Amino acid sequence: MEEESVRGLWTEARELIDSVSADSGGVERLESPPSPLQFIRDYVSPNKPVIISSAATRHWPAISRSLWSDDAYLRRALSGCSVSVHLTPDGRADALVPSPSKSGLCFASAFVQSMDFSEAMQLIEATGEESSPVVAYAQQQDDCLRGEYEALAGDVDAHIPWATEALGCLPEAVNLWIGNARSHTSYHKDHYENIYAVITGEKHFLLLPPTEVHRLYVRNYPAAHYISSSKDNGGEVKLELELEEPEKMVPWCSVDPYPASDEIIAEQSSSFPLYYNGPKPFQCTVRAGEILYLPSMWFHHVTQSPDDNGRTIAVNYWYDMQFDMKYAYYSFLQSINLYRLSSVASTQGEDKNDIKQNCSNSNPD
Amino acid sequence: MEEESVRGLWTEARELIDSVSADSGGVERLESPPSPLQFIRDYVSPNKPVIISSAATRHWPAISRSLWSDDAYLRRALSGCSVSVHLTPDGRADALVPSPSKSGLCFASAFVQSMDFSEAMQLIEATGEESSPVVAYAQQQDDCLRGEYEALAGDVDAHIPWATEALGCLPEAVNLWIGNARSHTSYHKDHYENIYAVITGEKHFLLLPPTEVHRLYVRNYPAAHYISSSKDNGGEVKLELELEEPEKMVPWCSVDPYPASDEIIAEQSSSFPLYYNGPKPFQCTVRAGEILYLPSMWFHHVTQSPDDNGRTIAVNYWYDMQFDMKYAYYSFLQSINLYRLSSVASTQGEDKNDIKQNCSNSNPD
Repeated sequence: MEEESVRGLWTEARELIDSVSADSGGVERLESPPSPLQFIRDYVSPNKPVIISSAATRHWPAISRSLWSDDAYLRRALSGCSVSVHLTPDGRADALVPSPSKSGLCFASAFVQSMDFSEAMQLIEATGEESSPVVAYAQQQDDCLRGEYEALAGDVDAHIPWATEALGCLPEAVNLWIGNARSHTSYHKDHYENIYAVITGEKHFLLLPPTEVHRLYVRNYPAAHYISSSKDNGGEVKLELELEEPEKMVPWCSVDPYPASDEIIAEQSSSFPLYYNGPKPFQCTVRAGEILYLPSMWFHHVTQSPDDNGRTIAVNYWYDMQFDMKYAYYSFLQSINLYRLSSVASTQGEDKNDIKQNCSNSNPD
Repeated sequence: MEEESVRGLWTEARELIDSVSADSGGVERLESPPSPLQFIRDYVSPNKPVIISSAATRHWPAISRSLWSDDAYLRRALSGCSVSVHLTPDGRADALVPSPSKSGLCFASAFVQSMDFSEAMQLIEATGEESSPVVAYAQQQDDCLRGEYEALAGDVDAHIPWATEALGCLPEAVNLWIGNARSHTSYHKDHYENIYAVITGEKHFLLLPPTEVHRLYVRNYPAAHYISSSKDNGGEVKLELELEEPEKMVPWCSVDPYPASDEIIAEQSSSFPLYYNGPKPFQCTVRAGEILYLPSMWFHHVTQSPDDNGRTIAVNYWYDMQFDMKYAYYSFLQSINLYRLSSVASTQGEDKNDIKQNCSNSNPD
């Protein structure tokens, strides 16, 4: 009965969100930026994603003058600057991987290394090769465009005018992301309204509305992080996974939408039937110059395709979300245990006071 | 467990809605009309009521020139016009009353009589006396300000500019209400964004957010309507209640927030514990010239205090609501049966296709 009601909710919410054809992956596209009023009325209030064409960013020097596709420009602008690079063995940071010492999975955070920007650029390019034992991703979800990357901040808008006016505030954080094809981001949600602009390359999103929270089997996993066990002269990093001490549990989405082998496919689909037997996620590609409005509380999984330099560069603007009736309904929905028959299942509520902190260290659940 | 979760939802939604002190009944007040953007962002999107001071209507001739407090003006303007008057024995139309032929309650609709406006005015005044066996209420929720009362339409704004711009459409209906102190409206909700302007007298609202739907015990009642069994020479109407044939069931809120006797209080509080043991409804008075934004899907109960002429006159503007994620969540919540222990309980879902029709005949559930 409960599962039936919840499935009814999925269907009804999708009917109300999904005004465009399934061919487009269900995400609407606009040829030009919305007015502030349109933005809040047609997208923020109904909590509905939309992609805005590159008309929205064509005045950004990063794009119009191709500055961020230009290696020499980037290296010159950030010459002498240190940046934070996230290192993992396979491009999966903040993701579930086999636990190093127990059976089962753990939630693995990247090894974060500060290095000269030109070294970071070289490492991102080099570690895009499948043979590389590490993958580098320059990112730091701490307002880094206005921090470590301040020298580049003038190449894009400091904020998104129509979003700022609509939401009545400036962005809480503006983050820069420079990665290669191997980095991807596992399903999670953020407690922010997210304006996601791709500058070079492409980003591929899978999106699930908050109404479908049960389909992702949010469960508690022990936290772990990669450490660098040695650094060879050649600059190569060797990573090892270490569980947090004392133990710390992190609630995280269990579903991997791109299982790597037939064995994992079979395992995933039997463990997570609500995901695999439910409606397809919304799916979209955001190209260079385009902007995705990714509504607060939507689950998203992100992969990327590089530009000719082997890199994908993006900037995202996080605006404070409104904790309103939708949020109260979401918390209520999440509190319903649909997994009673499954012995391993557990969901966990969230404390509003912890949310901001959790978000900023990319650990929003 | 379910009741606990639902009570958690009530509390959380209230914390997020209720930004103002409990002393004010929980409804925010604005000194001047919001901008369209503010209106949608701070009230429509979060589904939050607000009262706007009389600054919002001071350019309306109905108010600034006191036209609608002036009997002679009204009679002259509508001279020769017929209007629809709703007649009941006690001021309770679209309300639950004892069934005429079965045990239990039925849902009673008024006897609607078309009469000359000056006759209607006299009847509204005269039937305000407690001794009168009928109560007259001139109202017709069919866009009547632009219909029967067209002659008065120029005395108020044809639409509410900040709401029209915010919502991106003109009002679907503009309704006029002329009643006395004895008429009141039982708890119900409308599938519209409602801009409710009081012109003379006062309206007193009890408001419950849609998250609290279970507290009103929406159950099916047989529909009935008053008929006029005789009309004396003196113009006095005698009303009798008749069940619809064939039987028609109407889902309606069971709770009477102002029980008339100790016996009814005891009966109500034992039958409807979620209402009587839950948080107080939001409560507000809207005075002449003030506007209440009554968000879509909020349950409301309305009583009124008359002006010096014994009348309360109001105009409400119904704008189409957005059927969005909040609506999907509401339908889901409503589908949860909290009353399993009660043998008489039944709730009923609603068909979106029927909603508009149901609303316009004031039978929104």
